[in-house]
Amino acid sequence: MNELTLHPVGRIHSPFREKFGIPRQPGLIPDVRMRLELLPPWDVPEAVTGLEEFSHVWLIFGFHAVARGQARPTVRPPRLGGNRRIGVFASRSTHRPNPLGLSVVALEEVRLVSGRAELWLRGGDLLDGTPVFDIKPYLPWAESLPDARGGFAAAPPERSPVVLAEAAEEALARDAELAALRKLIVDVVAWDPRPAYRAGATDERVYGVRIGAHDIHFRAQGDTLCILDIVPGESAHE
Amino acid sequence: MNELTLHPVGRIHSPFREKFGIPRQPGLIPDVRMRLELLPPWDVPEAVTGLEEFSHVWLIFGFHAVARGQARPTVRPPRLGGNRRIGVFASRSTHRPNPLGLSVVALEEVRLVSGRAELWLRGGDLLDGTPVFDIKPYLPWAESLPDARGGFAAAPPERSPVVLAEAAEEALARDAELAALRKLIVDVVAWDPRPAYRAGATDERVYGVRIGAHDIHFRAQGDTLCILDIVPGESAHE
Repeated sequence: MNELTLHPVGRIHSPFREKFGIPRQPGLIPDVRMRLELLPPWDVPEAVTGLEEFSHVWLIFGFHAVARGQARPTVRPPRLGGNRRIGVFASRSTHRPNPLGLSVVALEEVRLVSGRAELWLRGGDLLDGTPVFDIKPYLPWAESLPDARGGFAAAPPERSPVVLAEAAEEALARDAELAALRKLIVDVVAWDPRPAYRAGATDERVYGVRIGAHDIHFRAQGDTLCILDIVPGESAHE
Repeated sequence: MNELTLHPVGRIHSPFREKFGIPRQPGLIPDVRMRLELLPPWDVPEAVTGLEEFSHVWLIFGFHAVARGQARPTVRPPRLGGNRRIGVFASRSTHRPNPLGLSVVALEEVRLVSGRAELWLRGGDLLDGTPVFDIKPYLPWAESLPDARGGFAAAPPERSPVVLAEAAEEALARDAELAALRKLIVDVVAWDPRPAYRAGATDERVYGVRIGAHDIHFRAQGDTLCILDIVPGESAHE
């Protein structure tokens, strides 16, 4: 096996429409829901029989929005402030020799729609449109290693406090569908999607992060992140 | 991304020279050591800088000894006695739409040999010669989920008691190198590599399992597995 060509078995439908703002690991935003549409011939109900007995599944997927051929032996992970280089294999960077991602997500429901199977997932960190190459059940007795040593990323990242400006509160009050995403919106901003070198520095810039059909505008105010406004989104930047 | 072609970044050197006898998940045989040889251009030391800070790593690898194009929507996992069919995505079967494996292994050492990096691993369940497509650090805060529900495979498989016949003890006594593998040999047999439908049934057959350069002969005696003899191996059956 000198090379292996993969074909998608499914595709992700996610409120994350661009890379900016996606949490850097699964589970950081437990409320986010995604739909995994299975693709023929693997969309038959038989292919997921018994999967509903598992609370979590692994997804092996492609970093489809990352240009290929750009992987280098070292990367500068945001967790290290973006200025220390480590080996690409010591990181979870999306710029990898083979652009494969690995995420454990909660399996909420196996649903049949017109005879085709789809999975409803929670807590994912996947971009809309992500091709999925494999789905495997999570095996806690083999894969839960609470005492493993986590290197430079031994603990979750730190959350920043978030406040909402009046315009943002008004946008939420006007739209019940949007209001249902309130916790998700706050969580995305709380994990501070800004480039690592910005965090902690004085930063006057207004950032926009796309969630579903909306653009969330926010700015740093000292250590707090302020959601300034929430507006109907322009076309995604991808 | 309608398809994705992967190229190996490394290759496994393992005492498991054939599929028969390999434990069905990592960690079941914690003593087994494997060497992951990195391949150019990813064998430079820079590519693994910082990896030594992690106690465990994920390997995404190819099931290279499984014929392609044979995946079906359902499989009969050995854990269910080999007679209940479940969905391929609810199983860890090697016969999958995309033949990718996923294993967490202990990272014992990052070693440089003539300027090339290699990883020494413990507890793997990989066949000799396995192509590795990605190496990622294990992140306990995101990936250790002790309360996950494990479905039909919620607990580790059951170990069988193992005894050694006189000829097997003599073979170990004659060869110090072989004697060092004693625990590994007993562990492989204790996880009972026989086809699932044999376990529990009367089974007079003598099985041979290859470990490194040796063939281990064993037979069931009631609920106990008896290692009859250990002999220099014939050529691997793969």
